[in-house]
Amino acid sequence: MVKKEKFDAIFFDLDDTLFNSSLMSQTARRNAIRALKEAGIELDEDTAFGILLDIVSKYGSNYNEHFDRLIEELGYEVHPKLIAAAVVAYHNTKFGLLRPFPGVILTLLTLMKSIKIGLISDGIKVKQWEKLTYLGIQHFFDVVVINDLPSQWKPSNVGFKTAMKKLELTDPTRIIYVGNKIETDILGANKIGIVSVLFDPNRYIEVEKLSEKEKPIFIIHKFTEVAEIAGFKQIGWRF
Amino acid sequence: MVKKEKFDAIFFDLDDTLFNSSLMSQTARRNAIRALKEAGIELDEDTAFGILLDIVSKYGSNYNEHFDRLIEELGYEVHPKLIAAAVVAYHNTKFGLLRPFPGVILTLLTLMKSIKIGLISDGIKVKQWEKLTYLGIQHFFDVVVINDLPSQWKPSNVGFKTAMKKLELTDPTRIIYVGNKIETDILGANKIGIVSVLFDPNRYIEVEKLSEKEKPIFIIHKFTEVAEIAGFKQIGWRF
Repeated sequence: MVKKEKFDAIFFDLDDTLFNSSLMSQTARRNAIRALKEAGIELDEDTAFGILLDIVSKYGSNYNEHFDRLIEELGYEVHPKLIAAAVVAYHNTKFGLLRPFPGVILTLLTLMKSIKIGLISDGIKVKQWEKLTYLGIQHFFDVVVINDLPSQWKPSNVGFKTAMKKLELTDPTRIIYVGNKIETDILGANKIGIVSVLFDPNRYIEVEKLSEKEKPIFIIHKFTEVAEIAGFKQIGWRF
Repeated sequence: MVKKEKFDAIFFDLDDTLFNSSLMSQTARRNAIRALKEAGIELDEDTAFGILLDIVSKYGSNYNEHFDRLIEELGYEVHPKLIAAAVVAYHNTKFGLLRPFPGVILTLLTLMKSIKIGLISDGIKVKQWEKLTYLGIQHFFDVVVINDLPSQWKPSNVGFKTAMKKLELTDPTRIIYVGNKIETDILGANKIGIVSVLFDPNRYIEVEKLSEKEKPIFIIHKFTEVAEIAGFKQIGWRF
């Protein structure tokens, strides 16, 4: 089925490539704010959301006390009851929304029958594995590389090289990388000579404004289009 | 890797083969009873559990009013608040415990790379698909057959024949069926000439007491042993 002579492996980014990370965190934060309101804090939801985004931006997304800071900013005492209300609402939303983009499971299952598949992502190792586990795809990959040192984050080639080494692959032109961000995923893949695929479901990226080294080799808007690039016919669901 | 000349397909039963159905329903029922106690019904947990099992046995496991009957039997009015307490506790437990047996995902992922895999189960179609979806394996199979008519339940050969037809397979000796019940799974597979595999994780079955037509061709105690029967080396996890 797949043209084996063409590609040896296909690697994927995680957040906003295999699942809708932005929708998940935005909805979870909104629900945490609603839970604070329910718990007795007087707030305007949009204003509180803006404050929370500023806090996330200031302290980083992996900081553990976003809600502590938010409650302070809103002028309340940081009571554990309030923190708990926000954390539980956040977690429950995450639990419900951490689901693969349509077509991800079926595409991965199809691809893995013929070529190696891998994941290359930046972040905290346990947090990224938690996401893979929530998504139910933790056993799918022939290789999983999570770069936890900022110096190794994409567009660094460290993750790409590690994944290639683990699968004993030497020719980057026979590898595909699928990601959603120009400045990390596409730039990184292009630098090392891997075939870059931009997944842009909302058609946000203005490709004509990109420099040559930022331009992806392929752009897709539906995840299942990955299969065609890898040499498969468009895949379909069975019922 | 797999001896392709040996088997064309491997089919699986669902309940108590791919996940621990018995543990799930027992724990869920126990938790529903605890929720009724929390909601104000005076009961002895073990006694109430026995009554509930009798109700399930009398009305069948797909009857919709087990908790209504239980509340009546315990001498209380069937108030929606009480039903809801039991149903929510039952559902939440199910949600947490409906997980594949260890090794199921990895084994299925490995097998599907070389041979066709299928599911043949008896029950209500939507309920069985719900289970597959909770388990996260709803896209894994080349064929899924759910017999919803009691006349077609295993050991009837209807399900086996339907699955074979859908995959255009004609030789039952080149097919494996894995199940946990002698009187349905093993008897059914043996009758049609499919290679029967008994999955007996708790070593409950006394094989020496079985008649010739009830005897499985293979017995396994760990799910991953399926792979060896299909011609794979014992499979292992990657980290």
